[in-house]
Amino acid sequence: MSKAGTQDPTLKSDHIACIGGGVIGAGWIARAIENGLSVKLYDPAPGARDAIQAVLENAERAYAKLTMAQRPNKGRVQFCTSIKEAVSLARWIIESVPERLDVKQSVYAEIERFAPADSILASSTSGIMPTDLQAGMQRPERLIVAHPFNPVYLLPVVEIVGGQRTAAESIDRALEFYTFLGMKPIHIRREIEAFVADRLLEAIWRESLWLIKDGITTTEELDDIVRFGFGLRYAQMGVFETYRIAGGESGMRHFLAQFGPCLKWPWSRLMDVPEFDEDLVELISEQSDRQSGHIDIRELERIRDDNLVAILQALKANNWGAGLLLADYEKKLFDAGARQNAASGAEGNEPDLSRPIRTMERRIPPDWTDYNNHMNEARYLQCFGDATDAFMRLIGCDAEYMASGGSYFTAETHIRHLDEVAVNEPVYTLTQVLMGEGKKMHLFHRLHHGDGRLLATGEHMLIHVSLKTRAACEPSPLISSKLASIAKLHSALPAPEGTGRAVGQPRA
Amino acid sequence: MSKAGTQDPTLKSDHIACIGGGVIGAGWIARAIENGLSVKLYDPAPGARDAIQAVLENAERAYAKLTMAQRPNKGRVQFCTSIKEAVSLARWIIESVPERLDVKQSVYAEIERFAPADSILASSTSGIMPTDLQAGMQRPERLIVAHPFNPVYLLPVVEIVGGQRTAAESIDRALEFYTFLGMKPIHIRREIEAFVADRLLEAIWRESLWLIKDGITTTEELDDIVRFGFGLRYAQMGVFETYRIAGGESGMRHFLAQFGPCLKWPWSRLMDVPEFDEDLVELISEQSDRQSGHIDIRELERIRDDNLVAILQALKANNWGAGLLLADYEKKLFDAGARQNAASGAEGNEPDLSRPIRTMERRIPPDWTDYNNHMNEARYLQCFGDATDAFMRLIGCDAEYMASGGSYFTAETHIRHLDEVAVNEPVYTLTQVLMGEGKKMHLFHRLHHGDGRLLATGEHMLIHVSLKTRAACEPSPLISSKLASIAKLHSALPAPEGTGRAVGQPRA
Repeated sequence: MSKAGTQDPTLKSDHIACIGGGVIGAGWIARAIENGLSVKLYDPAPGARDAIQAVLENAERAYAKLTMAQRPNKGRVQFCTSIKEAVSLARWIIESVPERLDVKQSVYAEIERFAPADSILASSTSGIMPTDLQAGMQRPERLIVAHPFNPVYLLPVVEIVGGQRTAAESIDRALEFYTFLGMKPIHIRREIEAFVADRLLEAIWRESLWLIKDGITTTEELDDIVRFGFGLRYAQMGVFETYRIAGGESGMRHFLAQFGPCLKWPWSRLMDVPEFDEDLVELISEQSDRQSGHIDIRELERIRDDNLVAILQALKANNWGAGLLLADYEKKLFDAGARQNAASGAEGNEPDLSRPIRTMERRIPPDWTDYNNHMNEARYLQCFGDATDAFMRLIGCDAEYMASGGSYFTAETHIRHLDEVAVNEPVYTLTQVLMGEGKKMHLFHRLHHGDGRLLATGEHMLIHVSLKTRAACEPSPLISSKLASIAKLHSALPAPEGTGRAVGQPRA
Repeated sequence: MSKAGTQDPTLKSDHIACIGGGVIGAGWIARAIENGLSVKLYDPAPGARDAIQAVLENAERAYAKLTMAQRPNKGRVQFCTSIKEAVSLARWIIESVPERLDVKQSVYAEIERFAPADSILASSTSGIMPTDLQAGMQRPERLIVAHPFNPVYLLPVVEIVGGQRTAAESIDRALEFYTFLGMKPIHIRREIEAFVADRLLEAIWRESLWLIKDGITTTEELDDIVRFGFGLRYAQMGVFETYRIAGGESGMRHFLAQFGPCLKWPWSRLMDVPEFDEDLVELISEQSDRQSGHIDIRELERIRDDNLVAILQALKANNWGAGLLLADYEKKLFDAGARQNAASGAEGNEPDLSRPIRTMERRIPPDWTDYNNHMNEARYLQCFGDATDAFMRLIGCDAEYMASGGSYFTAETHIRHLDEVAVNEPVYTLTQVLMGEGKKMHLFHRLHHGDGRLLATGEHMLIHVSLKTRAACEPSPLISSKLASIAKLHSALPAPEGTGRAVGQPRA
C-alpha cells in the first residue's frame, strides 16, 4: 500500500514554510512532518540544524507510541538559506522568531515580498497582539496568531487569535488546518495580550515565585503539590468543570456562593510582583538543579513525552477530552488508510474466510503490565477473549442475538505463553476454527506481535448456552450455518502447532 | 488466610474518628475504609448518611479499578450520635467541619474533653493557619493541618502543616499515617494562610474570572485550553520542572533569564480582583450549565474518577510521579499479603503445607463482569495469577527476590470454567504443587466460591527466569528447597481431577 504525501484540503500544497526553528519552531516542524507535510525552513542561527534534529527525533519516538493507525509518509525538512527560498511556494507560513515586535515586523516585510498572495502567515507569538503585528503589513487579512504549547508535536491545544484586520476566512482556514494536524484549535475571539493560557500560567508563575522567595516551599515540593494534586485533575477537566463537581448536586451556583467570598481573603500575593533579582534567580536555579539536575534535559524531555503519550492513551480509553481528540485523529487516519486500500484495489473488504481470520488488534494498554514489566498473564486471556468475541460477532452472535437470549460460554482454555510483550506494543490475533458443530465451538487463536512474532496461542472450547436457563442449548440456525461454513473452510488448514496439548506434556 | 483489620504502625488502632462528613470528610472516610481502617463518624447534618454513601460507592468503584493488588478487608463506618462516641477510643481524629474558626474551636473543645491524650487531631482546613486553630487548645502539640484535595480517595497529595505549638513528633506521625493511606504528604514547613496549592489555584481562579468577565473566553473554552494544554503537563511535571525543560540544555538559569522580564509585562489582571457581583455569577453559571449541564453530577464524578485512575495507571507504567507512588502503594499491599500468608494458617501458626494451600481470597469487583453478567473469563486467569503470586511469595520469590533478578514466568495454562460467579461474590483458591524441580514449577489451583462450590481449575507450568536475560535459569537454593519440600508433601495428595487435560478431550 503506497502512502502518498498528505494534502490538507485547506492547504492545497504538500509543504509549509517555517521561519524560525527554536523549540517552538522545531515543534511545529515535527508536528507537520509527522502528519505528512514537508517543511521549508529558514533559521540562520548557528547550531539550528542540530537542535531541530533533536526535537524531530523526540517527536518520531513519541508518535511511534502515540498511535497504531497508519500515518501518512513522513514529510521532509528542507533547510533554506533565505526567507525567499522558504516561502515562495508556501500556502502556510509559520513564524516562530524571537518575541520582539520590530524583529517580527521586519521578517513579515520579507515574507510578504516573496510569498504567494493567498498564503496564511501564522505567528507563534505567545504575547503580542495580532493587531500590533499587522501594523505595517500589506496583506494583514492573512495574519493570524496560532499560539501552541511545548511540546508542540504532542500538546493538542493551539490558541487562534485574529487582529482587527484579520479576515474571517483566515480564522476558518486556521481552525481547519490545525485540526488536520491533530490539534485542538481554540478561537480566542477578543484579542488580549498573552491571550488565555499564558495569563493563567503567568498567574501561577508569579504566585510560585512568591512561595519560593518567601521560603514557604521549594521548587520540588511545589512541583509535587502540582503533579500529585490538581495537575491530575487539570489533565482531564479544567478550572470550571472541576469546581462544578465541587459544588455537588447544586452545581456551579452553589460553588460560587460558597467560594466567591474567598476573593476577599488574603489568599494570594497577587497584589504584588516579586522583585526578580539575582538572589531569587540563584535560589530557584539551585533548587531546580537539586530537584532535576541529575536528569539530562533530553532524558527529561523523553520522560515528559512518554508520560504525555500514556496520559493521552489513558484518556482515549475513557473516551474523554484530549483522548477523545486522539481517537478522532486516529479514526481519520484509519479511514484514510481504508480509502487508500480500497483505491489501491489490492485488498477487498470481505475477510478471506478460508484462512485464519484477523480478529483483534490493539496496543498493550499501560495498565496491562505487572511487576515483571510485561503484559500480565491474565491479559493474554483477555486478548483471546476479545478475539473470541470478535469471532462470535462474525458468525452473528452479536449484542442483538444475546439480547434474544443466546450466547457462548468458554468451558475450557489452554494457553501457551511463548514470548513477552511490553506496554504500547502492537499485537493482533489470528483465529482458526478447529470444530463448530451443535452446541460446541472449538477455536484456536494465535496472538502475534505487530512485527509478526508469535507471542502466545489460545485453544478454547465454547458451549452455546441459553442466557435464561444458563444451560447448554443449540445456537440459532443462522449461527450454526455460518459457523459450519467457516469450520468447513478451516478444516482444510493444518492443525496449528500446540493443538490438543496438556500442560507440561513433552513436545511432539 | 484470615485478614484482620489493618493496623497502621503509627496508629496502633484499627479505627479513626471523622468529625464532619461533607465532600472532604466523606472522601477521608472512603480512603480510610478502602485501606482497611474502620471509621467512627459524627455528622449531625440531615442527609449526611446518604451523601456519604454516594461518595463511598464512588470510591469502591474507583479502587476496584485502581489496583490488582489484594487490599485489606474494607473497614466499617459507624455513625455516631455525639463527638464523645466518635472520639473516645480514637488515636487519629480528622476534622472536616465548616471553614469557620469559631466552629472549629468549639468542636476542638469537645474533642479534647473525650479523646485519648495521645490522639492526633488533623484538621482538613484549606485556609486557616494551624497556630490560629491551636489558640484555645489544651493539647495544641497534637494539632496538625492535613489538607487534602477532592476526590480525597484518589488524589494523592496532602499538605501537612504544623502551627507554632505543634510537636515535631505529630508531624512525623502524620507523614507516616498519610503514606500508609497511599498518599503523598508534603510538609509545608512555614505556615501561611491557604498553604501552597490553594494559593496557586486561587491565582488561576482570579485570572479565570477576569477572562470570563471581560468576555475573552467562555468557561468551556477556558477549560479546553487547560485540559488540552498545560493540564496534561501538570499531571506529570510541575511548574518548575516544566520550565526547566523550556530552558533547554542551559537549564533553569537560561529560562529565568529569558522569561524573568515578562514579570514587568502587563500579562495578567493580577493587580486587581474582579467584583464578584450577581452578573458575574450568572454569566459563569449559565456558561457552565451549557458546558456540562447535560451530564449528571454523579456521572461527572465517575468520569473524573475513571480518568484519574487511568492517568495514575498510565504514569505507573512509566514509573513516574503519582504512578510511582501507586506502584509503591501496591508493593506494600503485596508485601502485607505475603506477611499475612506467612503468619496465617491456624491462628498465627505455619500454614498446613501438607494440604492444598489457601493462596487467595477476594470478592469479585464490579468491573470484572462482562456482557454475560458474570466474571469475565480473563479474570479467572487473574485469580489464578494472583494465587500463583501468593504461592511464589510463600516459597520466597517475593519483591526482594525479584529485585535481585529472579522470577517465575508462566509458560502454559489450562483452565476449566466449571461455574459462573457474579459481582461481589466471595471466592478463594486452593493451590496444589504437582511438581517443583529445577527451573520448573507445576501448579494446580482450584477456584472456589465462598460457599465451597468449585468454580474453575487452573493448571500452570511456570519456568524460573533471570529478569536480566529473560532466559530460564535455576532459582535460588532457598526457593528450590522450599518448593521441593512442599512438592514432596503434596506428592502424597491425589492428583486433582482435570490434571493433564487437553481442551476438548473426552472426560476420563
